Amino acid sequence: MRLADLPTPCLVLDRRILQRNLDAMARAVGRHSVALRPHMKTAKSIDVARLGGFAAITVSTLAEAEYFVGHGVADILYAVGITPQKLEQVLKLNATGAHVMVVTDDLDVAGYIGNLAAPPRVLIEVDTGEHRGGLAPDDPLLLEIAARLGPCLQGVMTHAGHSYAGRSPADMVRIAEAERAGAVFAAERLRQAGFDCPIVSAGSSPTARAAQSLAGITEMRPGVYMFGDLFQAEIGTHAGEDIAVSVLASVIGRRPSQNRLLVDAGSIALSKDRSTEATAHDFGFGLMVDVLGRPSYGRAIVRNAYQEHGVVELDAGMPAPLLPIGSKVRILTNHVCLTAAAHDRYFVVDDTDDVAAIWPRVNGW
Amino acid sequence: MRLADLPTPCLVLDRRILQRNLDAMARAVGRHSVALRPHMKTAKSIDVARLGGFAAITVSTLAEAEYFVGHGVADILYAVGITPQKLEQVLKLNATGAHVMVVTDDLDVAGYIGNLAAPPRVLIEVDTGEHRGGLAPDDPLLLEIAARLGPCLQGVMTHAGHSYAGRSPADMVRIAEAERAGAVFAAERLRQAGFDCPIVSAGSSPTARAAQSLAGITEMRPGVYMFGDLFQAEIGTHAGEDIAVSVLASVIGRRPSQNRLLVDAGSIALSKDRSTEATAHDFGFGLMVDVLGRPSYGRAIVRNAYQEHGVVELDAGMPAPLLPIGSKVRILTNHVCLTAAAHDRYFVVDDTDDVAAIWPRVNGW
Repeated sequence: MRLADLPTPCLVLDRRILQRNLDAMARAVGRHSVALRPHMKTAKSIDVARLGGFAAITVSTLAEAEYFVGHGVADILYAVGITPQKLEQVLKLNATGAHVMVVTDDLDVAGYIGNLAAPPRVLIEVDTGEHRGGLAPDDPLLLEIAARLGPCLQGVMTHAGHSYAGRSPADMVRIAEAERAGAVFAAERLRQAGFDCPIVSAGSSPTARAAQSLAGITEMRPGVYMFGDLFQAEIGTHAGEDIAVSVLASVIGRRPSQNRLLVDAGSIALSKDRSTEATAHDFGFGLMVDVLGRPSYGRAIVRNAYQEHGVVELDAGMPAPLLPIGSKVRILTNHVCLTAAAHDRYFVVDDTDDVAAIWPRVNGW
Repeated sequence: MRLADLPTPCLVLDRRILQRNLDAMARAVGRHSVALRPHMKTAKSIDVARLGGFAAITVSTLAEAEYFVGHGVADILYAVGITPQKLEQVLKLNATGAHVMVVTDDLDVAGYIGNLAAPPRVLIEVDTGEHRGGLAPDDPLLLEIAARLGPCLQGVMTHAGHSYAGRSPADMVRIAEAERAGAVFAAERLRQAGFDCPIVSAGSSPTARAAQSLAGITEMRPGVYMFGDLFQAEIGTHAGEDIAVSVLASVIGRRPSQNRLLVDAGSIALSKDRSTEATAHDFGFGLMVDVLGRPSYGRAIVRNAYQEHGVVELDAGMPAPLLPIGSKVRILTNHVCLTAAAHDRYFVVDDTDDVAAIWPRVNGW
């Protein structure tokens, strides 16, 4: 099967680029001799986890947790604040031999977990600048939550998601250090109060790559680095030529006089993420490249995305508006986590247009 | 089963509101004695089609076409410009007894179809102001395409998607008339040139509702009216209290001092659509209401959406920041077509918190 034979839109994953990305992150984190607990929220694929040789992972949904446990990955961090109802699901999974660890920043939830007969391992979520979830590292509540958790407390976790606001290597170095320092400070407070804190978990793809020191951190949780996207390229944390995932699309309309094409990848297939609006180059909803992933059409930007239509604007003089209806192209997108979430499988290639494998994804909840 | 028992995030569909919306559109279009060929791109559910009693429908993907054919709906318009490869799929479906009709605005594709032994029915796409696909009604190419199609030509279709730029009843009336007049003008040109043109297909939800005359139109194709969303409410084409679909979510974090909550509906569960940014009230990524769909929390806006986290900002003094972790809420979203696309089923209620049915959706391609 070749890319030209596939129904469109669909997701193409270049395994050679993926392998390069996996290797690069293993080296980056390996410099610090901390463990890698990669976040599978982007890839959602056991085949990707196997290619990376991941023994311990992070997930964003319990559907991912169940899927990976079912495929033999037992050591899992569910990195979204836990609720009592979701704890029940985790306990069921753990009763089958899995080791799903959860996070909380809430006193009531900590009390609830601490009273369970067989609680899961728990990390307290710490906010090192993203201001999403988590306690400030110096919050007095940290010790109260630890006390309520009791022996199931395993340590702290943080996510420097504000690294996505960074725009330079210097920004990323600074944010990585804030992430490290905040997590380690919280862990030290716990230890000084007499709590064990074997796990100090941190990491986003930008900070895992940029950190100059990870002293005190025990594991890093990057995820999007496996694939990369236009936004990661714009903020300087992923080489544009190392974007591993794109959307295969067909030309479904052409307006040569307006230098415009229509493709059958719209707002579902690409996502409506507009993160590159805030970067140096605004890619609209995506960048059209050729069927082999080469930048053959210049700045061919998906300016408008309807549900199943993408409107591609081309620079004057580019020959793409003359592509026949049905021609295959690929679209690189702003935020690959969201793009991939609309698709149920990857069509895997190795730098050619031969489809070498089909890898399923675990979507939903 | 009650809503409180459901894993979150998930999609809730209020059948009583859906029924009201179905009835209202049937009345609106019935005024003009034209046929309704509802667009199933929003609902993607045979149960919704059955509730509406739809015998002829419109679809946005061939996955929808196959699904609805498999459930006994044979008369289908695939309303996205056809490619030769997709024609093969359509021909296979039609060989099983289906009557899938396709659209084109391309001379080469028309020639290709015209040369098929058993072509499907074809409508020529006409642009009445949206400027996405389609020929201008007065484009000379219209007659050339008709000539190449030959006897499989069944008429013309247009979609006034620019009605979504309208902000008042007067805007919608004007755009509806432009849609009608353009489609009818193209149809008349075809007839004057000797072509049969039994179908003149038009419609978006706003124009189907607002049209003062549909003279010359034979069928209308609204879709989003079945559910409605915040954007449709903002542009005045759907009552806010008639939004039938919402995302059930759980509170997963709280920061009372900042009037903020975290919910487990993020950018996948809600979509990153920001269409209300361009309306009078910007709802961020959604509006939080209570588990029964009542506006109990005031202007509780999802200001930020991460992959699996939604950040809800509340007005000062609202009690919602004190909701316990695990509390169920619902989120109304900007663009229900995209929100629903992330979910594989509806949990159906009848204005209570009892789950009366589970209706699957056909996602993907």
